Amino acid sequence: MTAPVVPPVAIVMGSQSDWPTMKRAADVLDQLGVAHDDRIVSAHRTPDRLHAFGKGAAGEGFKVIIAGAGGAAHLPGMVAALTHLPVLGVPVQSKALSGQDSLLSIVQMPAGIPVGTLAIGDAGATNAGILAASILALEDPALAARLIAFRAAQTGSVAEKPATQ
Amino acid sequence: MTAPVVPPVAIVMGSQSDWPTMKRAADVLDQLGVAHDDRIVSAHRTPDRLHAFGKGAAGEGFKVIIAGAGGAAHLPGMVAALTHLPVLGVPVQSKALSGQDSLLSIVQMPAGIPVGTLAIGDAGATNAGILAASILALEDPALAARLIAFRAAQTGSVAEKPATQ
Amino acid sequence: MTAPVVPPVAIVMGSQSDWPTMKRAADVLDQLGVAHDDRIVSAHRTPDRLHAFGKGAAGEGFKVIIAGAGGAAHLPGMVAALTHLPVLGVPVQSKALSGQDSLLSIVQMPAGIPVGTLAIGDAGATNAGILAASILALEDPALAARLIAFRAAQTGSVAEKPATQ
Amino acid sequence: MTAPVVPPVAIVMGSQSDWPTMKRAADVLDQLGVAHDDRIVSAHRTPDRLHAFGKGAAGEGFKVIIAGAGGAAHLPGMVAALTHLPVLGVPVQSKALSGQDSLLSIVQMPAGIPVGTLAIGDAGATNAGILAASILALEDPALAARLIAFRAAQTGSVAEKPATQ
Amino acid sequence: MTAPVVPPVAIVMGSQSDWPTMKRAADVLDQLGVAHDDRIVSAHRTPDRLHAFGKGAAGEGFKVIIAGAGGAAHLPGMVAALTHLPVLGVPVQSKALSGQDSLLSIVQMPAGIPVGTLAIGDAGATNAGILAASILALEDPALAARLIAFRAAQTGSVAEKPATQ
Amino acid sequence: MTAPVVPPVAIVMGSQSDWPTMKRAADVLDQLGVAHDDRIVSAHRTPDRLHAFGKGAAGEGFKVIIAGAGGAAHLPGMVAALTHLPVLGVPVQSKALSGQDSLLSIVQMPAGIPVGTLAIGDAGATNAGILAASILALEDPALAARLIAFRAAQTGSVAEKPATQ
Amino acid sequence: MTAPVVPPVAIVMGSQSDWPTMKRAADVLDQLGVAHDDRIVSAHRTPDRLHAFGKGAAGEGFKVIIAGAGGAAHLPGMVAALTHLPVLGVPVQSKALSGQDSLLSIVQMPAGIPVGTLAIGDAGATNAGILAASILALEDPALAARLIAFRAAQTGSVAEKPATQ
Amino acid sequence: MTAPVVPPVAIVMGSQSDWPTMKRAADVLDQLGVAHDDRIVSAHRTPDRLHAFGKGAAGEGFKVIIAGAGGAAHLPGMVAALTHLPVLGVPVQSKALSGQDSLLSIVQMPAGIPVGTLAIGDAGATNAGILAASILALEDPALAARLIAFRAAQTGSVAEKPATQ
Repeated sequence: MTAPVVPPVAIVMGSQSDWPTMKRAADVLDQLGVAHDDRIVSAHRTPDRLHAFGKGAAGEGFKVIIAGAGGAAHLPGMVAALTHLPVLGVPVQSKALSGQDSLLSIVQMPAGIPVGTLAIGDAGATNAGILAASILALEDPALAARLIAFRAAQTGSVAEKPATQ
Repeated sequence: MTAPVVPPVAIVMGSQSDWPTMKRAADVLDQLGVAHDDRIVSAHRTPDRLHAFGKGAAGEGFKVIIAGAGGAAHLPGMVAALTHLPVLGVPVQSKALSGQDSLLSIVQMPAGIPVGTLAIGDAGATNAGILAASILALEDPALAARLIAFRAAQTGSVAEKPATQ
Repeated sequence: MTAPVVPPVAIVMGSQSDWPTMKRAADVLDQLGVAHDDRIVSAHRTPDRLHAFGKGAAGEGFKVIIAGAGGAAHLPGMVAALTHLPVLGVPVQSKALSGQDSLLSIVQMPAGIPVGTLAIGDAGATNAGILAASILALEDPALAARLIAFRAAQTGSVAEKPATQ
Repeated sequence: MTAPVVPPVAIVMGSQSDWPTMKRAADVLDQLGVAHDDRIVSAHRTPDRLHAFGKGAAGEGFKVIIAGAGGAAHLPGMVAALTHLPVLGVPVQSKALSGQDSLLSIVQMPAGIPVGTLAIGDAGATNAGILAASILALEDPALAARLIAFRAAQTGSVAEKPATQ
Repeated sequence: MTAPVVPPVAIVMGSQSDWPTMKRAADVLDQLGVAHDDRIVSAHRTPDRLHAFGKGAAGEGFKVIIAGAGGAAHLPGMVAALTHLPVLGVPVQSKALSGQDSLLSIVQMPAGIPVGTLAIGDAGATNAGILAASILALEDPALAARLIAFRAAQTGSVAEKPATQ
Repeated sequence: MTAPVVPPVAIVMGSQSDWPTMKRAADVLDQLGVAHDDRIVSAHRTPDRLHAFGKGAAGEGFKVIIAGAGGAAHLPGMVAALTHLPVLGVPVQSKALSGQDSLLSIVQMPAGIPVGTLAIGDAGATNAGILAASILALEDPALAARLIAFRAAQTGSVAEKPATQ
Repeated sequence: MTAPVVPPVAIVMGSQSDWPTMKRAADVLDQLGVAHDDRIVSAHRTPDRLHAFGKGAAGEGFKVIIAGAGGAAHLPGMVAALTHLPVLGVPVQSKALSGQDSLLSIVQMPAGIPVGTLAIGDAGATNAGILAASILALEDPALAARLIAFRAAQTGSVAEKPATQ
Repeated sequence: MTAPVVPPVAIVMGSQSDWPTMKRAADVLDQLGVAHDDRIVSAHRTPDRLHAFGKGAAGEGFKVIIAGAGGAAHLPGMVAALTHLPVLGVPVQSKALSGQDSLLSIVQMPAGIPVGTLAIGDAGATNAGILAASILALEDPALAARLIAFRAAQTGSVAEKPATQ
């Protein structure tokens, strides 16, 4: 009767509207065979849920947290304030400022509370998944092998010449 | 034996280094005869204090909260998430980005949780104090009179001609 | 035969084209049961109307003014210059600069004349309405109760999991 | 008994602190033999003075108005709203944002109310003076001759080789 | 047999693609009864045409020059370098940077050579036309009357209330 | 005779001038009892060293790489391209653009190759150290305990009130 | 039996998605009769290919390299680090930041390793082709003649008047 | 009695104040044994000198032109408009906007007229010199050898470890 049902990665996002972006993190983790738990945790609309999630994340058994938000994006930094686990932040592309606000709100954390920030939008979400996998792979040789294969396949998929049609 | 020991305004800031800026809010409130309680509440280093402060602010008797922070400035927005009281945000001028990060982190709040944001730096802190006073003056005719006099004195102090020396 | 027909909130905007944005403030005030008077006051095309409005606002019985404008957005600051009432500013998203000009024109007020500035665009207009309500709620327990309920409903509406379709 | 006591150019600025910048406009007008009247007119702290100045400027006999301000720089645009005279705007370099806020607040005027905007800071103030002179020179051949000579001297002062020391 | 066939305003632009913007200047000048000559003068592709135009503009009889360009927009500044006439610059909205490059390339002129810069895009072009008219109106009472009427009509056209449909 | 002489963290930087910033990462790792190897690896001036370092990093035994650079900061991304280990990027504050170029050059990586990016300058370097420690702590309970104590001490060091003198 | 089969220009790009932009460089080189070799070389996904290409470029016989990339655009700078040949960089317009990230990542190279950077997007790619041709034309009189004719035709194609339809 | 007195590189700059920056280009060309002619050519104050220089540059015998300017930096683009020689642009760091205006004014050239743009300030000037040398080295094996040695020495000068003192 086995227990370790807790996935190692939590993907949290500020709202449903962040999901099309954050799904990229979920997808690449699926591809790499890393389980994840996807949740909506709004720093602003559900601050108690945020507080409970952040304080409980390590105890729940999570190892890496991916947090995505847009605009005045406080979720990644606030989760990082509440846990000592590594937190990766994804700036979701915002409407008026194209994610420049999201990026600065996430990356410019003060000394003491880090958020490892990825690119604005889809690329950032995909990369948050890969970075989480690379962290977990440090102590998981099978995952390391899958990650190395993923990277090699990625390299192999780059054509030598641009295709004109 | 009267009770009104709770000042109507709380001035909270992310760290000691914000005080030279936030003191401007304190100073103008002093000038206008509005009591205030000044506290350090770091969203990132003291998230429990933040949570307790935000949830308790209305109960403590505060009416308006002025929150200042720099960089990835999450304090004003997180306080606003935790209380229904009006929250005014002051973007403290940051080192690398001159407060552009602070401004966007504070002002670009999502629909549902407002922060009334003032200018970057000293002017913003002074104005947070004045705006808090103007809010309190709505139901305090004596304060309204002091505020009107303050504004009139300010108008009166503007010379007609630039002084050359 | 009662008199207090003056709504506590004035929503002013620089032009008809700001209305789709500013209507969000009107809508949320309606939701919260706060009456409002919506007017077009162009700082640039109707400066006399601006002057008359600003100087008369307190006398008319308004308590909070929400002002929205785009580009070189002078309306909020000029209204604030003409009244001691609290003024909330909404930067309307502009065409070329996506509201960055609107935001800086509104928020960067000099010490002495505050404008509590909200986010660029729709979110900012909604939040101006909520912030106005939170100010009025300080002396209106029924409104405070409605606001707290509104906030609680908002919290309750956040799903635990992102919905994939 | 001569009358032309009204100088053709008014230089107005938002505060004493703008004078070191705006003095460049005064200086170049002096050099070009164009009289000017220098005044402090704060859009925010002295809105009545602004209103009176703008509405009376044409009647007073001014022909061109140079207006300088910093931050949320509303003075040039508000003067332009109150007069049909040509208004030239000088964005004074601000502390936190180096005049980017001043520039956008002045230049991004809506269709209908123009402000001819010059560069941020000293160069802009000098150029406002020269542009005002070039406008007045359209109907003043003697001034045109002085302006052409000024421009020729400027051209003549440019060394052929950089001086190394 | 009368001669003054030279229109007082030249509208020059860097390429055909600027015409949809610059046509706004032409349209408002038409409305105000000010003749204008519209030309393509590319600073980069036709530098000799630029040189000839700039040096000959005063001699041709032009009084005010409106110059519009996008991107690395050198036309307005280069025309201003070649004539002592007042030059008004219109930053055309560019593709990648939305006219931020156009604006800075036009407005940030060094001391000595002014360009009176208007807003990015359509509003700027309209305003360049109005500003040109206001300059010409200084010595043309009939034009001044038309301009004042234009401004009054503009003021009169602003509705009191936003129209909802 | 034991072997584990390879420190788990490599700190690489583009030039000697980055060391005052990157030393913050070294210092906090020292504080947390995490060994590190500090090297200069210039992506531009020593591309072979970069290539060798990146390809060999996993084989050398490193687990996390902290890379700092300024301006067109290619080091973190290029190291990430050459290894599957987690790479953390520190944007060093640049002279002209205050690190905005460094930040965008590091954080805006394409999908497939992640760099976990920290804040511009000193805070970012400190946080890169802490984040590296939090990654290593996932499988090192003693380090996790030290990290938790470090975080608690940090929380405990925040005064309740701002100190005025 | 002739040998000079190596085209003088290499056009390299980070991915297939850059081709619609970079094709402009290819097209203008075709027009000018300059042979080119177009390749995909991803700095991040194919770092070995990058290393081999850069180190071998001079030996292969290339004379000028045009490199285009978007976002954290490291390709041009890394190629420049690996060869002493002249490298021209094209910032491809990126999704969230419209190529501002691409531009800064390419142009802000440290002293020692130059990349001659062109405009963001299509115009930049065309111009990279022309600049490459102008470099090769220094020792190729026939190409110089073609380039001069190309430039003259370009000048000749500029209409005198904007066409209205 | 031989003639080749014309240096292959012209370094032109907008004003004496650009020389401390542009001297870096001169210095590195000296180091690489490439002769250069340094001149002040102000696009705005000496437009005839600019026109004459640009049109005559190829005839004078120059092969590469390095042009530096700040603010609304029109010199590089205007020289490029007047010659088919390769033109390299150096954005001089400006006071208010730190060279962001210089950079955009130089790099954002329209299709048809290229300027190979280097980094803002000193690094850019040094790199313009190196890039000019790399262009000339294409047909000058001795210079190519000196350039390769320069690059090798540069690589060799990078220490393995940061020096702490």
